[in-house]
Amino acid sequence: MQLEPYSRKVFYYETDKMGIAHHSNYIRWFEEARTMLIEHAGLPFETVEEEGLMCPVLSAECEYLIPFRFDERFIIKAYIPDFGKIRFTVTYEVYGEDGRLHAKGLTTHCFVDNDLKPVRIKNSHPHVYDIYSQISAAGEKLYG
Amino acid sequence: MQLEPYSRKVFYYETDKMGIAHHSNYIRWFEEARTMLIEHAGLPFETVEEEGLMCPVLSAECEYLIPFRFDERFIIKAYIPDFGKIRFTVTYEVYGEDGRLHAKGLTTHCFVDNDLKPVRIKNSHPHVYDIYSQISAAGEKLYG
Amino acid sequence: MQLEPYSRKVFYYETDKMGIAHHSNYIRWFEEARTMLIEHAGLPFETVEEEGLMCPVLSAECEYLIPFRFDERFIIKAYIPDFGKIRFTVTYEVYGEDGRLHAKGLTTHCFVDNDLKPVRIKNSHPHVYDIYSQISAAGEKLYG
Amino acid sequence: MQLEPYSRKVFYYETDKMGIAHHSNYIRWFEEARTMLIEHAGLPFETVEEEGLMCPVLSAECEYLIPFRFDERFIIKAYIPDFGKIRFTVTYEVYGEDGRLHAKGLTTHCFVDNDLKPVRIKNSHPHVYDIYSQISAAGEKLYG
Repeated sequence: MQLEPYSRKVFYYETDKMGIAHHSNYIRWFEEARTMLIEHAGLPFETVEEEGLMCPVLSAECEYLIPFRFDERFIIKAYIPDFGKIRFTVTYEVYGEDGRLHAKGLTTHCFVDNDLKPVRIKNSHPHVYDIYSQISAAGEKLYG
Repeated sequence: MQLEPYSRKVFYYETDKMGIAHHSNYIRWFEEARTMLIEHAGLPFETVEEEGLMCPVLSAECEYLIPFRFDERFIIKAYIPDFGKIRFTVTYEVYGEDGRLHAKGLTTHCFVDNDLKPVRIKNSHPHVYDIYSQISAAGEKLYG
Repeated sequence: MQLEPYSRKVFYYETDKMGIAHHSNYIRWFEEARTMLIEHAGLPFETVEEEGLMCPVLSAECEYLIPFRFDERFIIKAYIPDFGKIRFTVTYEVYGEDGRLHAKGLTTHCFVDNDLKPVRIKNSHPHVYDIYSQISAAGEKLYG
Repeated sequence: MQLEPYSRKVFYYETDKMGIAHHSNYIRWFEEARTMLIEHAGLPFETVEEEGLMCPVLSAECEYLIPFRFDERFIIKAYIPDFGKIRFTVTYEVYGEDGRLHAKGLTTHCFVDNDLKPVRIKNSHPHVYDIYSQISAAGEKLYG
């Protein structure tokens, strides 16, 4: 499995009066990167949704190293270093176009059904489990 | 029926690199004001939601006259000048603390059920219809 | 001049509890499309910024026809039908992947300097004026 | 020094398709609570801004325990447990109206001037330093 990192430019409405991308947006960028990671790994969102599986965030954190300004491009490499039976972790490295690390973050998640009750997907959704396991196993090799 | 206008201060994350509240936020402020208007008129959100009634936006517009900066207070007077059987209109006047008009806007809406199908609430939800009619009838006298 | 329409997928955080992209985001999408239009027409943002030229929004409006759900792709064709000496208008057509029109909108703008004072760019920034004029003149042919 | 916790209701546009407040908003709520904490402690934003002092976020984290739904009220108690000469930490406890802890978080900050260069405020802005020190010293007694 080999994927492209997630990348786009900072939108104008994401800046704040300091002239930089507001720190809350990084948490949203993580979600964008995470969504694309899962889809590109072979799991289209509709598939998962039709099966009534959701993936809420249990915790999120971000360390801000170098700010981004409007229209600057960010590149996010997302990994799943720890894929457990109930919880899993996604880590994020946010780079600028010059290759420097601008931020890094981490989110933890679980799987729940439409009533927000936890689901052990290894048994209930083995094809979902497989994709996540493959991403996790790929480790640093995910982005070539 | 006599109500307080909706009011709060501009949040930091609502500013952009021009140093003013980003124009997209006014559309969100209209929603905040609209929600409070309906609740204060006697229609708690839970009541409406339990009955499977939703109120999507069909159109929205805003004219920007004087910008708001971080931490400045805005005051919104929302009215329902036109409450028809299927569609209705809400208008908004956005004032600064000095009483000057900073922006004005308009949204149009209809009522739908959980499947996003239109509902004629006069028959199906007469108590909801009554509240909206009272707000509409109050006109300019709504805010004393 | 021939350009690609602006396009991306709806982010998860752009949805609301109705399960559709919140209406306020369209105003932000217009800005994304407008920014790309100007850049692709040959005017990188840094150029404009270094010259202390900003472009605030005087009014914005949107008509919502068909909702977008999470992960659905939208395609925006932005035009500048009216480029006057002081004000100009940008119009937006928002399509789904099936080619149907989901929304349409309009914003009006002026040019200001760093102190938010109006600027007549025809004299002060003729290269900026030229690009906008070319986009405006291209009309419907902008997207081939 | 005795203050009121920060509190408001969840806005509609803050919900996502899961029907709960999107997790990125908590990072924004922390900023709202932090702003109010500093202001109520006696430091109006204009004062600080006029002196060219800004306070960027170095890191942010949040643990999500119980979700909030639309229109539910949240109450945030913000503390400054650690106020150092260069960096400081703000912690947040987010409660529901029933008194249960819904989330907790932490942000770290430094002071910078308008060029984003670090400032040691003890010498340069002693009145700002004093207010932060008082908040920090108050500890748990901040909210009575």
